[in-house]
Amino acid sequence: MKKAIGIDLGGTYIKGALIDEQGNIVVKEQIPTLRELGSESILERIAELVRHLAQLSEVPMTSIAGVGIGIPGFIDERLGMAVEVINIGWKQVRVREPLEKILQLPIFMDNDANAAALGEAWVGAGRGTNSAICVTLGTGVGGGIVFNQKIWSGTNHMGGELGHFVMDPDGAPCNCGRKGCLETFASATGILRMASEGIENGVPTSLSSVELSTKEIFDAAAAGDELAETVVTKAAEMLGRGLAMAADLINPEIIIIGGGVAKAGDGLFVPLRKAFIRYALPRVVEVVRIVPALLGNDAGVVGAGKLTF
Amino acid sequence: MKKAIGIDLGGTYIKGALIDEQGNIVVKEQIPTLRELGSESILERIAELVRHLAQLSEVPMTSIAGVGIGIPGFIDERLGMAVEVINIGWKQVRVREPLEKILQLPIFMDNDANAAALGEAWVGAGRGTNSAICVTLGTGVGGGIVFNQKIWSGTNHMGGELGHFVMDPDGAPCNCGRKGCLETFASATGILRMASEGIENGVPTSLSSVELSTKEIFDAAAAGDELAETVVTKAAEMLGRGLAMAADLINPEIIIIGGGVAKAGDGLFVPLRKAFIRYALPRVVEVVRIVPALLGNDAGVVGAGKLTF
Repeated sequence: MKKAIGIDLGGTYIKGALIDEQGNIVVKEQIPTLRELGSESILERIAELVRHLAQLSEVPMTSIAGVGIGIPGFIDERLGMAVEVINIGWKQVRVREPLEKILQLPIFMDNDANAAALGEAWVGAGRGTNSAICVTLGTGVGGGIVFNQKIWSGTNHMGGELGHFVMDPDGAPCNCGRKGCLETFASATGILRMASEGIENGVPTSLSSVELSTKEIFDAAAAGDELAETVVTKAAEMLGRGLAMAADLINPEIIIIGGGVAKAGDGLFVPLRKAFIRYALPRVVEVVRIVPALLGNDAGVVGAGKLTF
Repeated sequence: MKKAIGIDLGGTYIKGALIDEQGNIVVKEQIPTLRELGSESILERIAELVRHLAQLSEVPMTSIAGVGIGIPGFIDERLGMAVEVINIGWKQVRVREPLEKILQLPIFMDNDANAAALGEAWVGAGRGTNSAICVTLGTGVGGGIVFNQKIWSGTNHMGGELGHFVMDPDGAPCNCGRKGCLETFASATGILRMASEGIENGVPTSLSSVELSTKEIFDAAAAGDELAETVVTKAAEMLGRGLAMAADLINPEIIIIGGGVAKAGDGLFVPLRKAFIRYALPRVVEVVRIVPALLGNDAGVVGAGKLTF
């Protein structure tokens, strides 16, 4: 049976796994990115990690179909290039050609959110579905859409970017330069911002006495804290309306929510489903499930590996 | 070369065409729907139209790959059924089985907006593209998404329903039961409503002395009428923001705009493109063109025919 290697390139760690055609992880490893050493060193370290994973699993390099890499930034498939990767300080870095030369294996690439979406849709919460919208609620809001177990990358790998849906043109500024993007409401950053603003405005809340985190905010909302409830309701309302639009367009079987904010469980999913039902077309609601992601941090490497099959 | 027949079922007319594999119309015809005669009569008349088109073009029934039908309502592919077609008064009408029995040809179906989208993407404004979002601005706002010359119908044929993106939860009521859908701003109905409201509120305008139509409104806006400008700007702004969200998700090569409202030409497309650029991610904007539809009323029959290939 064929094997593949998936690499999830991050600002702090490079994660890698050798997977089989069923999406099982045979072996996985991570090494520090050490981005300060520059792009050449990072590419060499990715190659080392690939060889190391093959050795660990005792799979000869000739039995490996290829290496897929999830890159946290903009990529140019045709040129095999990372156009811009802010977290790692890359601009116009060729990835495919040098790695193919070193490893003598075909290299595939997509952005990291798309790779993670593919992993979840393939063997995570979306296993067996024909269409999935995947969302990651972390520092930002990332997304990916998967049709028939293939990621839809779009014309230039921007597919699935629902974090930048402009939900409220008069909203808070977003990193992307616009205002009121979904990300400004539903990311961890956005939730913390809304809570901080409430505290600064003197809204009485139990949150003023704790170190602010999304966990504290969801816990306080569950305990009936009014500011926390308002913040959670706003985040769920905006996410529900954004996902309703995505679902009216794609009419998917499943919507998978991952990332740190999704750890709130029912605290997020209950108000989220309510908002979704309010805004999506009834026939769209009928056929879709909104569920938590299952693979956690493994989604990225598994999905990256899947790119090669 | 194989031929196919496409049928566009409407509330007033049933349109039909025999097309070849390149999407050329060999012959076309239309007959009145006569919906008051009931569903059985309509199905028989569709079958007659199919036979008539074959005769007209001198193509033997055995050389016809199948018949595709665009239906203006909700359909159930598995059961070959029109679940609800409000304009024709259909509920739970079986379409595929009776027509296959009468015609001895395979019958394919999708909703009419999806069929029209497929026609435009295949041989209309989207010819040669890999991904298209198609929008029809008429009484309502319909849409369809096309990947690699195939319509993405979604899980239950609701794919592409961007007319019901809730753009403003406090907006005007929509036919669908929600408020502030894109359709309430960017359809002919929505544009007329906004102009009428302005006139009722006593805003001074040249429109108060004419019979209100979208053409009059776009003409008045071009001539500098303030109310008309406000209405057109609002419609273009909402449509631009809605399409920006759809494009951030799909990252398509082309967005095709058809329907009566699109006849305004630059009067619509200039403010629309401005709004789109303001709200979509720059890398998404870079690769997409926003263009008028080319096929007009033929899009529906051509796309319906394409369903069979």
